[in-house]
Amino acid sequence: VVTAHLEADQPFATATILSGAEAGLKLLLDENGVQYVSPGLAPALIESLTAHGHAGLRERGSYQVDGVFVDVYRPRPRLIIVGGAHAAVALAQMAALVGFSVALVDPRQAFATAARFPQADVISHEYPDKALPKLGLTAETYIAILTHDPKIDDPALRVALPSPVPYVGVLSGKRTHEARLERLTAAGVPPELLQRIRTPIGLKIGAQTPEEIALCILAEIVAVRNLREADIQLTR
Amino acid sequence: VVTAHLEADQPFATATILSGAEAGLKLLLDENGVQYVSPGLAPALIESLTAHGHAGLRERGSYQVDGVFVDVYRPRPRLIIVGGAHAAVALAQMAALVGFSVALVDPRQAFATAARFPQADVISHEYPDKALPKLGLTAETYIAILTHDPKIDDPALRVALPSPVPYVGVLSGKRTHEARLERLTAAGVPPELLQRIRTPIGLKIGAQTPEEIALCILAEIVAVRNLREADIQLTR
Repeated sequence: VVTAHLEADQPFATATILSGAEAGLKLLLDENGVQYVSPGLAPALIESLTAHGHAGLRERGSYQVDGVFVDVYRPRPRLIIVGGAHAAVALAQMAALVGFSVALVDPRQAFATAARFPQADVISHEYPDKALPKLGLTAETYIAILTHDPKIDDPALRVALPSPVPYVGVLSGKRTHEARLERLTAAGVPPELLQRIRTPIGLKIGAQTPEEIALCILAEIVAVRNLREADIQLTR
Repeated sequence: VVTAHLEADQPFATATILSGAEAGLKLLLDENGVQYVSPGLAPALIESLTAHGHAGLRERGSYQVDGVFVDVYRPRPRLIIVGGAHAAVALAQMAALVGFSVALVDPRQAFATAARFPQADVISHEYPDKALPKLGLTAETYIAILTHDPKIDDPALRVALPSPVPYVGVLSGKRTHEARLERLTAAGVPPELLQRIRTPIGLKIGAQTPEEIALCILAEIVAVRNLREADIQLTR
């Protein structure tokens, strides 16, 4: 069961009893529920281990609590950058350093080159509405949209917003964003999806240079990955 | 005057009148006040340009406002990292990327090597109370203290806190910090200086890995550099 989950590269947790007569008995669960239970595990313990496992899915790494060992696997996160301008170069470098795999999407081939983005394991010159679904939009995918060009940014948003990705940030001024919301509304994107757009992008650090913009975006992505939503709001 | 200021590598601003009979007349000021005034500048204009210049010293780059061109020079910021463990390696890489010159101080020579810190333009194996004054503690110097060892961290704090550096962050847990405050108080550091210590270090992004810790520290440093204090508090 563990091997199958590892191969699927989806997050899962195991909760194992550490001592007593039932030491070593465990269950495994993922975001769809319990997937495996050791034979002989009493119903009350199943309930307890299930709760521990679900708590584990919100953590990273492994820990002990209440005599239970909770072991969590989360796949390597991926950052998809739409648009290969200067801030994207710095963002790719920093994100790789922090442990993200990096994919770059930009139909403007002069921007999206392997020479500019040696950290990217995928570079796509397709438009984002084609490219993003091929890359896979999972709960461990983070998307930063940076082109300032509606012909590229809008198709990215139309496929990213209805997907399970936890982060969709757009580099944009306030007035530009109002026009964007009008266009996407006219294109049929419902308000609850439009609210998922994070803009102004990034944590508030007074970012001015492309490198500082990259820094504030990556800090926001890590905050979204590690904190509960209520705590993230406080950082904006 | 400009050349002398550039050579001193201290921040300064010039404010120049853009049009009218007095176009081209200017003044230059730094943090110590007005250093140069064009001959023939009327007292009312001196007052106005002085206000513009002081406003400029809180900005970066150049801009026009009210018919005045404000040109600001700020020296390249320097990050001094005290302690060369894993988070420091990532912090040096990211800080160099964002435009900081990087200096590393660690008496433990195995940590502080050029191989681990190719971005550092200075690596010192002296204790921080010796090393930091030699590096120069200016208004554009940011200090991150990361060793967890009072024998190294405390001397760093004793020289950094009374200096003009705008940022002194210490990697530390809450209880460790209480013990540190007691030690420094016993050593005669006054409470208003102890309040300058930023700990827990870094913006709140749920940082867990060394690389994420580096990210949250650098984001905080850039916020301190670019924002007013009131706005920074909101990001914590």
